[in-house]
Amino acid sequence: MDMDENPVSPIKVAVLQFDPQVGTENRERNLRHGLSLAQEAVNHGANLIVMPELANTGYLFTHRNEAFDHSEEIPNGPSTQVWQAFAQKNSIYLVAGISERDGFKLYDSSVLIGPDGFIGKYRKTHLWNLEKLWFSPGDMGYPVFETPIGRIGMMICWDVWFPEVPRILAQQGADIICSVNNWVWTPPPLFDESGKCMASYLTITASHVNNVYIAAANRVGVDRGERFLGCSLITGTNGWPIAGVADSEKEMILYADIDLMNSRGAPIWNKHNDLIRDRRTDTYDQMLGYTQHTPYPR
Amino acid sequence: MDMDENPVSPIKVAVLQFDPQVGTENRERNLRHGLSLAQEAVNHGANLIVMPELANTGYLFTHRNEAFDHSEEIPNGPSTQVWQAFAQKNSIYLVAGISERDGFKLYDSSVLIGPDGFIGKYRKTHLWNLEKLWFSPGDMGYPVFETPIGRIGMMICWDVWFPEVPRILAQQGADIICSVNNWVWTPPPLFDESGKCMASYLTITASHVNNVYIAAANRVGVDRGERFLGCSLITGTNGWPIAGVADSEKEMILYADIDLMNSRGAPIWNKHNDLIRDRRTDTYDQMLGYTQHTPYPR
Repeated sequence: MDMDENPVSPIKVAVLQFDPQVGTENRERNLRHGLSLAQEAVNHGANLIVMPELANTGYLFTHRNEAFDHSEEIPNGPSTQVWQAFAQKNSIYLVAGISERDGFKLYDSSVLIGPDGFIGKYRKTHLWNLEKLWFSPGDMGYPVFETPIGRIGMMICWDVWFPEVPRILAQQGADIICSVNNWVWTPPPLFDESGKCMASYLTITASHVNNVYIAAANRVGVDRGERFLGCSLITGTNGWPIAGVADSEKEMILYADIDLMNSRGAPIWNKHNDLIRDRRTDTYDQMLGYTQHTPYPR
Repeated sequence: MDMDENPVSPIKVAVLQFDPQVGTENRERNLRHGLSLAQEAVNHGANLIVMPELANTGYLFTHRNEAFDHSEEIPNGPSTQVWQAFAQKNSIYLVAGISERDGFKLYDSSVLIGPDGFIGKYRKTHLWNLEKLWFSPGDMGYPVFETPIGRIGMMICWDVWFPEVPRILAQQGADIICSVNNWVWTPPPLFDESGKCMASYLTITASHVNNVYIAAANRVGVDRGERFLGCSLITGTNGWPIAGVADSEKEMILYADIDLMNSRGAPIWNKHNDLIRDRRTDTYDQMLGYTQHTPYPR
């Protein structure tokens, strides 16, 4: 093989943008609806499927007990088990948001499941608004999982507002970040002239500066009065969207045919530059300073 | 005064997008042309004026000696002196890019000058392409200068590709970042459907996640075959552009009436969140790791 010619390892990513509704009476329907979209994606050849944050429960809990009622253990709870059976049967990778119960603690988590079953989870580090009333802040750092198709990292919603998160995932070699969201309000305008919301900008930038694919699933619809922005998108390693953005607020499936190995080559480069190696880590000490520390993160 | 009503400290920022040409024979013309635009901005009431990178020299040097021939000491070289006289006469703040000579070293620098004269300088930390043949990488960190109108930081071109840079400036309290650029090629498309280039996305994101104004001046035109992208813009503290983007590649002056003190209030906030305080610095240690270190940064 010509050494200058890269081998190609194509996969098809699918992002599911849909509308789960809160209420334990809706969980069964949420799960089924998510899986029917996932089945449609499988029928279209998808290998990696990404669902939104809290994909089985909906978002707006009204009190702490209700949040507990929506939560499940990972991987032994019913939702993870159903997702696992689906992934195994169809030989695909699946990422989905879920309210995780661990003893008396809840986490706003996401699971990564593969053809051989449960692979790992991520617990949302940066909690948004009322989430702080139900969930504990993530305590697992930012894990990246090795899989046969490549290295997969996850982040959840408000996390992308902190450039540190995609940076740390990429620095650990993530080829793709599965971004699991319930994006709501940000300072107006909610959408720019091309249908992008501010989270689209943050995602495009995170992807570009880190040379990593991002598959960002957001939910749509209204849940107990809260409007969600859609804007799901898939970015190439150069940051530009390769799927998404139009018809931001409708239920839909986005697809992209990609080669995760693209993230391993130099992104913006010439004889003297390589975006990733050009980092001046010798000058970044101040990144960690100048911040109020609280005894317990919130 | 009602404590809930913020006092207002308005200023007018002007960003000059123009076309300096390389060649020592052009320096006088470059300087004069920049100042004629600056005078127009002053006539329109500007208090803070931002010029592009290497505003007096043009960009594409052909060999090391030529780069030396274009360089000047700061603040005693002729360009800084002329800029200083202009700022003092018109009682304004001026930021401009310049090739700095310091003994046998050159830096790709910017100067900040005020009504009382020279205030400080910044040396570009992340060098792009052939710049590495002429310039030494910046060795001053990321200074933020206190002024009567507010705290001013600077960054230069390729710096914005590294989210660490605006983060560190904002963490030191910068109210505005003056971004001094010669933005050239990035992975296509060069412009999106609204005339933004990838650097526009990076700037909007840097501004939004750091709750800081960014006044980004890029040059336009072609210099020894290299095409510059324009796309100058001014962003509000919420990241959205308040000036710029249309007619990206023409010479122009952008204006924005802003209150630098806006950057001191919480940006995205509610009872439980404050974007800046929500940083989980307890989880960011990996920011500094996983990077090849070279004995001398390049």
